Amino acid sequence: MFNFKIEKKSSDSLARAGVIETPHGVIETPAFVTVGTKATVKALTPEMVASLGASVVLANTYHLYLQPGDELVKAAGGLHQFMNWPGPMMTDSGGFQVFSLGAAFGEGGVSKFVSGHDPNKKSKEQAGNIAKLAKIDEDGVAFQSHIDGSAHRLTPERSMQIQHNLGADIIFAFDECTSPLAPYDYQKEAMERTHRWAKRSLDEHKRLGGPQALFGIVQGGRHQDLRQESSRVIGGMDFAGFGIGGSFNKEDMGTAVSWVSQNLPENKPRHLLGIGEPEDIIAGVKSGADTFDCVAPTRMARNGALLTARGRLNILNASCRCDLAPIEEGCGCYTCQNYSRAYLAHLFRAKEMLAATLASIHNLYYLINLTKRIRRDVLEGRL
Amino acid sequence: MFNFKIEKKSSDSLARAGVIETPHGVIETPAFVTVGTKATVKALTPEMVASLGASVVLANTYHLYLQPGDELVKAAGGLHQFMNWPGPMMTDSGGFQVFSLGAAFGEGGVSKFVSGHDPNKKSKEQAGNIAKLAKIDEDGVAFQSHIDGSAHRLTPERSMQIQHNLGADIIFAFDECTSPLAPYDYQKEAMERTHRWAKRSLDEHKRLGGPQALFGIVQGGRHQDLRQESSRVIGGMDFAGFGIGGSFNKEDMGTAVSWVSQNLPENKPRHLLGIGEPEDIIAGVKSGADTFDCVAPTRMARNGALLTARGRLNILNASCRCDLAPIEEGCGCYTCQNYSRAYLAHLFRAKEMLAATLASIHNLYYLINLTKRIRRDVLEGRL
Repeated sequence: MFNFKIEKKSSDSLARAGVIETPHGVIETPAFVTVGTKATVKALTPEMVASLGASVVLANTYHLYLQPGDELVKAAGGLHQFMNWPGPMMTDSGGFQVFSLGAAFGEGGVSKFVSGHDPNKKSKEQAGNIAKLAKIDEDGVAFQSHIDGSAHRLTPERSMQIQHNLGADIIFAFDECTSPLAPYDYQKEAMERTHRWAKRSLDEHKRLGGPQALFGIVQGGRHQDLRQESSRVIGGMDFAGFGIGGSFNKEDMGTAVSWVSQNLPENKPRHLLGIGEPEDIIAGVKSGADTFDCVAPTRMARNGALLTARGRLNILNASCRCDLAPIEEGCGCYTCQNYSRAYLAHLFRAKEMLAATLASIHNLYYLINLTKRIRRDVLEGRL
Repeated sequence: MFNFKIEKKSSDSLARAGVIETPHGVIETPAFVTVGTKATVKALTPEMVASLGASVVLANTYHLYLQPGDELVKAAGGLHQFMNWPGPMMTDSGGFQVFSLGAAFGEGGVSKFVSGHDPNKKSKEQAGNIAKLAKIDEDGVAFQSHIDGSAHRLTPERSMQIQHNLGADIIFAFDECTSPLAPYDYQKEAMERTHRWAKRSLDEHKRLGGPQALFGIVQGGRHQDLRQESSRVIGGMDFAGFGIGGSFNKEDMGTAVSWVSQNLPENKPRHLLGIGEPEDIIAGVKSGADTFDCVAPTRMARNGALLTARGRLNILNASCRCDLAPIEEGCGCYTCQNYSRAYLAHLFRAKEMLAATLASIHNLYYLINLTKRIRRDVLEGRL
């Protein structure tokens, strides 16, 4: 039910074009994975998501475990049926949210700030709760719900059980996502724990059975030796594919991803977790990543920041108020085909919900089509 | 370009089925008019609105005059093009909002609370601003913007100019919408002023020219003699159709609408302004009204109150949390065809925007199809 085929490899980079087959359809790679955190791509119907050219949606284990609960999703027939998305789906392991919405403690009780994939985007409210919501040990993580403060525990086994209940096509091993601010020794310790958790995730996944494909997650922070070690260890396990987790310096993200790609088996897909700025996708593909997910395009859209070939357009700029041109001339998205900047500016000023819908359509279309163009370039030997 | 044809009249009530022809298509009556206050039906794309079976959208002159401005809408090619709605459109006169978002003063400076069509739904914030936002005289109304407090003035002539800029197919004469709490003498005074404003609206509309159809508005509060007088006076003017404005007692709304219908020319359409509860639509049709607009179905939807044949369902009820049935078994709407109550309950609890979209689709579908069934009943002599 799960298969990855490489169609073409670049001759002067690690880029490749391929096809991931899942029980719910294929993902042509490189691909941008649309994020539907709480079993909905914010402000869009599944039909809109499909019409953008999106092939795969990623939902969040942590959020869905807390609300509405994975048992309910299972009773509803799994995520696909619950949210009415018939295509391929991923769920992450829940680790990132546990650490980024709370905070991780080492066994010695020393607080270590935890970044997650996108540490600067953390809200002040969340940051204020740091150091009290999560506690880590060898077995797993105890944490408090960010919704109601209730106590919960995630372990590699629980993460697998929850992700099996959710029923996505591609699921991820439970990992510890460290802060880039954590010292080297802690990065190494956390990475080694992540490797032990990977083995436990794999064992539990096999015990549970079924058609889902489990991806292992490579960690190691921003250290070349740790990244290389992690990719060799995780790459040596019987995963269907791999996630590349943790944070990167934006300047040398491509280099760091290359350290990983070069040490992973070539014939399995690689997902770069939480990365999705246009320039990062290009660097990621050149460094051997096949798929990418990121909340940025839809979050930016809801704030009125629109992606264009000439950079970001802030629709709340005074110049947009009477501008009857589309967001971007020549853009084929539904929004640009049917609405002006002036209309969007009006909707944003009037705080109308359609603003978020139309802006999200544009930004997702932009990123998905950027990734499709990159795929064509790889296939035609132009990257 | 504008025409109204009665296809069938009920033998034992004032109900009739007909067709309104406009430059942007036909409206089969009785019809529910979907409200798109600020040039968007909240949380829905125009394609969604059309797919519900909606044939006509009503936008608000007051709101669009203030933001983004009627001149901009005109420059964009008019409302249809600005908001991407190709079908028939209406705009109201702006009078209702001027009075309900502010407050009207008599010449003597005595404050009179103003109801509008739905006085109980006014927000506390708006109520707090009452008595300072609007001042009425023979010429028109001076008011402050509810957005930024800036000073504005609407007169019958300005309302016509603005509505010509907006470019809807059916527009309304400028009227004064009184509070049901106002004394009889003031109701009469305001009604007579509305009649003078109707004449001025008609004159200005003719001077401006063009294909738009102007409807006069009947007022008169809850008094039979005033309603009869107003319908005879307004009905005697050269309007293409009529709006029935002001507030009613829910218990005898049908009776009050009948007073009006019996005194209006039979061959012109009648629009009941701001009325749209299921039972009110049935009573309205039996009393001779052809079209209805109301924000209630979409506002209720955004609050999680869903229309069903067995009354309102509050999706936040604990019982919905794990209920895998649709909102209503047998309902043909997109939401009921594809999503469970449990999914909607999850979206509402998670404060996801899709909640408002899916709930609005259901409620509008319910009301539009209720009205279509009433139309069939009239056509087939069953009402």
